[in-house]
Amino acid sequence: MDVILAYNRYLGEHGRKTEALYRSLREGIVNGELTAGTKLPPSRKLAELCDVSRGVATQAYDMLYAEGFVRMEGGSGTFVCYHPAELGTHAEHTATGTTAAQDCRSADIAVSEWAMRLEPVQGSHVGVANAGYQDTLILEADVIDYEVTSSVPELFPAEEWKKVMYAEMRETIRPQHEQPTGEYRPLSEAIARELARERGIHADASQLIITNGSMQAIALLAMLLVSPGDGVVLENPTYPGIARAVQAAGGRIITADVDERGIVPADWQAKLLFVTPTRQFPTGAVLSAERRKELLEWANRRGAVIIEDDYDSTFRWRVRPVEPLKALDREDRVIYVGTFSKTMLGELRIGYTLLPKALTELFRRAKMLFEPMPSGLIEQRALAAFIAGGGYERHLRRMRRICGRRLNDLREAAGSKLGKLFQFVDTDAGLHMYAKWLGEPADYERLKAVCSEAGVRWSDGKRYWLNGKSEGECALFGFAHLTESQIEEGVSRIETAALKLFGY
Amino acid sequence: MDVILAYNRYLGEHGRKTEALYRSLREGIVNGELTAGTKLPPSRKLAELCDVSRGVATQAYDMLYAEGFVRMEGGSGTFVCYHPAELGTHAEHTATGTTAAQDCRSADIAVSEWAMRLEPVQGSHVGVANAGYQDTLILEADVIDYEVTSSVPELFPAEEWKKVMYAEMRETIRPQHEQPTGEYRPLSEAIARELARERGIHADASQLIITNGSMQAIALLAMLLVSPGDGVVLENPTYPGIARAVQAAGGRIITADVDERGIVPADWQAKLLFVTPTRQFPTGAVLSAERRKELLEWANRRGAVIIEDDYDSTFRWRVRPVEPLKALDREDRVIYVGTFSKTMLGELRIGYTLLPKALTELFRRAKMLFEPMPSGLIEQRALAAFIAGGGYERHLRRMRRICGRRLNDLREAAGSKLGKLFQFVDTDAGLHMYAKWLGEPADYERLKAVCSEAGVRWSDGKRYWLNGKSEGECALFGFAHLTESQIEEGVSRIETAALKLFGY
Repeated sequence: MDVILAYNRYLGEHGRKTEALYRSLREGIVNGELTAGTKLPPSRKLAELCDVSRGVATQAYDMLYAEGFVRMEGGSGTFVCYHPAELGTHAEHTATGTTAAQDCRSADIAVSEWAMRLEPVQGSHVGVANAGYQDTLILEADVIDYEVTSSVPELFPAEEWKKVMYAEMRETIRPQHEQPTGEYRPLSEAIARELARERGIHADASQLIITNGSMQAIALLAMLLVSPGDGVVLENPTYPGIARAVQAAGGRIITADVDERGIVPADWQAKLLFVTPTRQFPTGAVLSAERRKELLEWANRRGAVIIEDDYDSTFRWRVRPVEPLKALDREDRVIYVGTFSKTMLGELRIGYTLLPKALTELFRRAKMLFEPMPSGLIEQRALAAFIAGGGYERHLRRMRRICGRRLNDLREAAGSKLGKLFQFVDTDAGLHMYAKWLGEPADYERLKAVCSEAGVRWSDGKRYWLNGKSEGECALFGFAHLTESQIEEGVSRIETAALKLFGY
Repeated sequence: MDVILAYNRYLGEHGRKTEALYRSLREGIVNGELTAGTKLPPSRKLAELCDVSRGVATQAYDMLYAEGFVRMEGGSGTFVCYHPAELGTHAEHTATGTTAAQDCRSADIAVSEWAMRLEPVQGSHVGVANAGYQDTLILEADVIDYEVTSSVPELFPAEEWKKVMYAEMRETIRPQHEQPTGEYRPLSEAIARELARERGIHADASQLIITNGSMQAIALLAMLLVSPGDGVVLENPTYPGIARAVQAAGGRIITADVDERGIVPADWQAKLLFVTPTRQFPTGAVLSAERRKELLEWANRRGAVIIEDDYDSTFRWRVRPVEPLKALDREDRVIYVGTFSKTMLGELRIGYTLLPKALTELFRRAKMLFEPMPSGLIEQRALAAFIAGGGYERHLRRMRRICGRRLNDLREAAGSKLGKLFQFVDTDAGLHMYAKWLGEPADYERLKAVCSEAGVRWSDGKRYWLNGKSEGECALFGFAHLTESQIEEGVSRIETAALKLFGY
């Protein structure tokens, strides 16, 4: 079977086994090497042939099935069912129809000013949103990857979640009782109760709007609050998606320094500030109480708005209550943004925004421009039921216990073995640790290369620095998806590589 | 139980039984009339007490459950589990936390130019998006409502759909193979095949991007293609969401006339045209082949872009193939927007956009600004499997058969009985008929009032006219959700009312 050859080629290109296997099989089918009716090997056999796990083989077949390339017949196997000439049978269409990809000149299209300001997602310093947020975590057998993930799939309570999803599925075609405004009210109310209990914010559910993840909220807020030329303060380093949203809106970005007590307040001439007080992203610094007050005073004095992105406050491993800005906000100038993507599953795109009274209707209007009706309503209902039934609270407790232990493992291992290489920012929360490189930049690159070969990887921190203003090389170590022995083994590999390279 | 009193009061306010029942129970719980531990009547009993169906009672309980007001105990019943003083027990939070709704002055917040251009969803002529698109269709026993609905829930193949959803649910926590670009590739490819087969458009799936319904696509396209002051051509009448999107982007709206052959071409000084060639919205006129060519020539000459909104082409009840502009587009200047919200279920927010090569990356970038990862991925996967497995095609065939019959019923009944009141625009497609009022405006209002009392309603067409430029009173009659006898009975009621009022 030539598929194996093709598989190895695709694997080289893509790096992901499932993708490579799926593409190689599809190539064979489309090329006509594997003709309609051909019985494909059972997934176990295919897995052996290509030296992958059986799960990978099954998934490749599933993808082909979803695309209509193969059919599955109960016990008897998987069969090719694609006829390469299929499109040709519709001659009446082919004759007149155009092929969008070929057959037509490339149009010279003028785009808007907004479009011209829109940075690509990859390539520039600002535009690397999500680069460290790989949700797909296919761990190769012997590679320990301290990648920063948006969630911890292995800790996800899949069975419980499926139960509530099934229950909501059963309701699919019942008359809906969602609000026409786009939020599913029982979920807004459940979140409002959570905020009161966990964060000391006594929110009116009518001011709490559900969004598709927190990034939708951030992008909408940038559009609603920023006109071209307006000054907007961002922490440096920061999450690049925020910078892209402000830039697209035409905002003039003012960078604010961050130290070990969080953002350094100043009397910025700006009307908007994005801040991560609970745990600065990505450094993990906790904003001091004093600075919190200073930020609020600044906003009140300037008539400015503060957007508080509380992206992972849920993950406090030890008890140290940090009061959100929103809980201190007496003038209704703070917008509080939160998300369930991290506590639940990256693909569950549910975030929320608690708005000042003066902005609630406007935000709703903006969201409804894009989505007159809410997306992912079944997930929203399931989440409301999951919270109400206590499943979410139980899940969080379990995550806190396990991830807290893993954080300790990393702190101890890294503290005792990597202290000459990195200065770790101490933290008692979150899903990653931030570390400054203590040596020369060139040595960082050399270490990375050797480590990658030795089967250990992490995320670069430089991509989070605006305008290339990084203080030097820095790194993020995600730990929540790794076991204790993986965490220790990874650190040992880095130590060994450094010893070989630098002698310490 | 005072709940019944409250129920009748809420029913008067809201009109919806489920909502009223839920609110009245909640009121009782929050007031402390129904204390924690109280066993509520079984749903059958509750239904009897309030004279509602058992489904209404069950749903009210489900809503209370989702909000955490009641708990359900297997066979033994439904119990109140809410303590009114609950928040008070967290005194350490209450002391420092703010109540967003009270306790704080209303901030004086400056918003962006974009925000100031953003029209509200209700109230103005332009801003009535979705007004006729009520997805929630709770038919009161004896009211025949020719409401225009976004889908036909009663024809939705719920059992088949649940099966594919369950199958995808099982995969929830597997490593994902979605593209980081936001589209679920197997679905894009399935749609591309459908477009080739059904619409004669031979699309490259890499230029086909999945969106949360078609409105997300339209709003993003307006942002990408319209700078403040740019001329943008809209059909008049049109779907108000399009006008709101263009207006928010700062576009200068140029209205184009519509007659019985669709939009009337002109040499507009504009760079963008939104058009519904297959079935003009809302009139239902089909754009003539000649005019299609004229529009494309205009775009090529002006270097303009055409956005073709093919919102309900799927519903052709008789065979009359209408070639989309996109299939004739040799210069890659047409953007083709489609949706599954109508063929499937209104709450399934899946639309798609086939882009010119020159705009694909930019559109993807814009979408990813709001959603770095796709929403509703399970639905996307389920839909891909549903299409691949042939279920979608079967469902469409059934819908076409049933709705085609219903359209005929309406045409015949209205043609023979309402010909002196309305001039119906003939159509062989879609889910509604458009009709011009032949009499005086005041008489239209009188008829509507009498009909409403006689238990028959329809949608006003005036809300779709830009700048109040309506040709007079007009109406939309949705028929797809009504049975043959309902359709006929409704028409008879209108006829009777007219006889009483006008003598004909």
